[in-house]
Amino acid sequence: IASQMSRIMRPDDANVAGNVHGGTILKMIEEAGAIISTRHCNSQNGERCVAALARVERTDFLSPMCIGEVAHVSAEITYTSKHSVEVQVNVMSENILTGTKKLTNKATLWYVPLSLKNVDKVLEVPPVVYSRQEQEEEGRKRYEAQKLERMETKWRNGDIVQPVPNPEPNTVSYSQSSLIHLVGPSDCTLHGFVHGGVTMKLMDEVAGIVAARHCKTNIVTASVDAINFHDKIRKGCVITISGRMTFTSNKSMEIEVLVDADPVVDNSQKRYRAASAFFTYVSLSQEGKSLPVPQLVPETEDEKKRFEEGKGRYLQMKAKRQGQAEPQP
Amino acid sequence: IASQMSRIMRPDDANVAGNVHGGTILKMIEEAGAIISTRHCNSQNGERCVAALARVERTDFLSPMCIGEVAHVSAEITYTSKHSVEVQVNVMSENILTGTKKLTNKATLWYVPLSLKNVDKVLEVPPVVYSRQEQEEEGRKRYEAQKLERMETKWRNGDIVQPVPNPEPNTVSYSQSSLIHLVGPSDCTLHGFVHGGVTMKLMDEVAGIVAARHCKTNIVTASVDAINFHDKIRKGCVITISGRMTFTSNKSMEIEVLVDADPVVDNSQKRYRAASAFFTYVSLSQEGKSLPVPQLVPETEDEKKRFEEGKGRYLQMKAKRQGQAEPQP
Amino acid sequence: IASQMSRIMRPDDANVAGNVHGGTILKMIEEAGAIISTRHCNSQNGERCVAALARVERTDFLSPMCIGEVAHVSAEITYTSKHSVEVQVNVMSENILTGTKKLTNKATLWYVPLSLKNVDKVLEVPPVVYSRQEQEEEGRKRYEAQKLERMETKWRNGDIVQPVPNPEPNTVSYSQSSLIHLVGPSDCTLHGFVHGGVTMKLMDEVAGIVAARHCKTNIVTASVDAINFHDKIRKGCVITISGRMTFTSNKSMEIEVLVDADPVVDNSQKRYRAASAFFTYVSLSQEGKSLPVPQLVPETEDEKKRFEEGKGRYLQMKAKRQGQAEPQP
Repeated sequence: IASQMSRIMRPDDANVAGNVHGGTILKMIEEAGAIISTRHCNSQNGERCVAALARVERTDFLSPMCIGEVAHVSAEITYTSKHSVEVQVNVMSENILTGTKKLTNKATLWYVPLSLKNVDKVLEVPPVVYSRQEQEEEGRKRYEAQKLERMETKWRNGDIVQPVPNPEPNTVSYSQSSLIHLVGPSDCTLHGFVHGGVTMKLMDEVAGIVAARHCKTNIVTASVDAINFHDKIRKGCVITISGRMTFTSNKSMEIEVLVDADPVVDNSQKRYRAASAFFTYVSLSQEGKSLPVPQLVPETEDEKKRFEEGKGRYLQMKAKRQGQAEPQP
Repeated sequence: IASQMSRIMRPDDANVAGNVHGGTILKMIEEAGAIISTRHCNSQNGERCVAALARVERTDFLSPMCIGEVAHVSAEITYTSKHSVEVQVNVMSENILTGTKKLTNKATLWYVPLSLKNVDKVLEVPPVVYSRQEQEEEGRKRYEAQKLERMETKWRNGDIVQPVPNPEPNTVSYSQSSLIHLVGPSDCTLHGFVHGGVTMKLMDEVAGIVAARHCKTNIVTASVDAINFHDKIRKGCVITISGRMTFTSNKSMEIEVLVDADPVVDNSQKRYRAASAFFTYVSLSQEGKSLPVPQLVPETEDEKKRFEEGKGRYLQMKAKRQGQAEPQP
Repeated sequence: IASQMSRIMRPDDANVAGNVHGGTILKMIEEAGAIISTRHCNSQNGERCVAALARVERTDFLSPMCIGEVAHVSAEITYTSKHSVEVQVNVMSENILTGTKKLTNKATLWYVPLSLKNVDKVLEVPPVVYSRQEQEEEGRKRYEAQKLERMETKWRNGDIVQPVPNPEPNTVSYSQSSLIHLVGPSDCTLHGFVHGGVTMKLMDEVAGIVAARHCKTNIVTASVDAINFHDKIRKGCVITISGRMTFTSNKSMEIEVLVDADPVVDNSQKRYRAASAFFTYVSLSQEGKSLPVPQLVPETEDEKKRFEEGKGRYLQMKAKRQGQAEPQP
């Protein structure tokens, strides 16, 4: 009932100082847990299922892991209730050049088997065989304790970190979205600044989320305005990509996207504007035809001004296209 | 002076409906442009350089590309000024099952060669050889036009989409951060909901950005409180992961992370809380020793209440640790 | 009938010393091969199909590739039998700063067209047009030779790599390693089985960990023996990739890699051997010169037998190389 996996730590798994992100380790822990609990829950004939994560107990990071080290993740099923599986996962870091091994984490995860036919249906878990008699009793206690805590937290944490509370549909605030991205090695050239293409991909991603939030359909990029890269973005920056809808025509949406870079680990440098552009999106039906889009409702003076400017760009582009389509004298 | 690259489009390159993201295509366009212009700028003996993207002209997406199709990206240098290179990139989609090919994009990009020894120094570009005489004159006109436009936009778009204007250092507002993430195929199980490990990795990423913004040093995860997964997150959702600092001790920071899921393409379902947890981070010196952290300044009543709650958790954990360290009677 | 693709090598493609992983190159080779053979097999009207990798011939890594270089992969169809396609792929590395180009690899791959409607049905391959008459006869000989070898390997390699507690340095148990990988959507073709290139990349990763553990230096892939893909790996499997050192010469290490697939959610299907191959690694000094490697100490009877078999392959390959180097009469 044990499972073992190993993976070498890469530059993208770590921060600029070479320490592996806690999140990378948590992701491996969960993968090992999902494999062993899915395998266990399917070990008897019966309805096929997949194990879904329900809870992770408090986890301490006992020693840092570095790029080039191998992470060994071992998982074991330590308790089963009627509808849940407890998995204990240990993580060791191994320096394969020196042979040094260190315990990095011990984690406890709870999984619930969901039917493959109907993922809202929870199936029964085959009982695990314990090697010592007390194990079942100890497990039951942990099970009861976590159940109690889950109940409590479900009703905590009501509030949401958000600028505008409950904006109205079709307003700028309703669909406005920001994405932060910590620049990693694979985003950068060898010389330590971000590839222009990486920035553009993130800009399109934010624009797409704004468009999808506004019209709640399948949306695709129709065009991108000229994009100017005002300044290089260096390794170790956090970039904030913000998008807001500026204008809608009958069948298109214009979204302004701003990119700001924040050199978090360098106190001397200030946040600066790195790039900006306007993206145009259209909404598509299942047959690939363009659909009408809900009209944007600008509220503030700034929003109204930006709407008019967007309309100007739209009409200018429309005139240009018609001009091109007509035969030249 | 032409360059050609091809790549098959995978589920991760596309949205839920199978249409390749505009951003994926923009990224390939820029990669082709960077290769051809870097190669050109190093084609004569002299200082080695790398071509940095300065501007992308307006780009239209002429026809959608789908998963399974092969994207063919071809790039050509069409003009050089003293310090910049214009690259024209065409993208074709090929359905390798039917053989159908379609023009997807025509893009024009401007690159500037930066010295490898000093990336703030712009080098000279070797002149390109034109096949027709008029090409140089036409290129110069495009060069002048874009130069003018760049100047204009540099001073536009001053404002930033942000909740709180200019917060003070060490406040909650100063470091508070949100990340939006569009759930893609590789985030999901085969059954269409997000791996718990993916969610935890994003939670840690936001917590890390909050901690880095607060103390501007190398920070690492020290522990994660119990995480409860209240509800599954399905494919096609946009998830918002928000982090805010709740408490600081002398050498640690507690960050609360909330995960909200927004089923953007499904109007009937409302945004819901999917998970939440407290992360503890410490700041490390270059030698790996833990450093003191700047003290958090709670401002609002809610912030003060959360600070006290965080202090409670901190003292409780400290007592627990000291209890464990002492010999049992 | 030629296809060309290029990609710049990023930090994630390489090890800590900046050498691109052999597995990254194998993955690009397979992608180019899959595109050209799928296109060819669909070039006539008839049932639509996808080309699945069946075998890769022995591949040598002629010179190392580094981060920042551009890999150019070109593929060409060199032979077709009734049910299979032979593709020849060449890889060149280009340093775009200095303009230096080097041949990195020549590889030969065999593909089989599977029906899109029923992926267990093999379709017929349209005949390729040869530019020289002898090409068909030469191809037929290669086809017959590989067919014979495939038959043989299908029944070899029955056993599974199992952990030993506290092994001595330089033994097989000391460096032996296993990696498990949960097949995700981005590893798969649209038709739900794993890309051959993904499997090869994982195989090289395990072989690299075994080699690094054994000799504790910067190691690179020198060659890969023929790889046979005995069976498709389907979506939802967990694959175990195990590597063990079989033989060392003065300056090279041979590692056997076995791939086993385990359909965790489907109890009716048993774990099966999906692929196997021998990788040869060398150890490099900081100046890129090959270093002596610690000699492997085989302990059990099986290990001694495998060592002798490895020695046989090594001497045979050495003789072959010397034969090629000598002038032909």
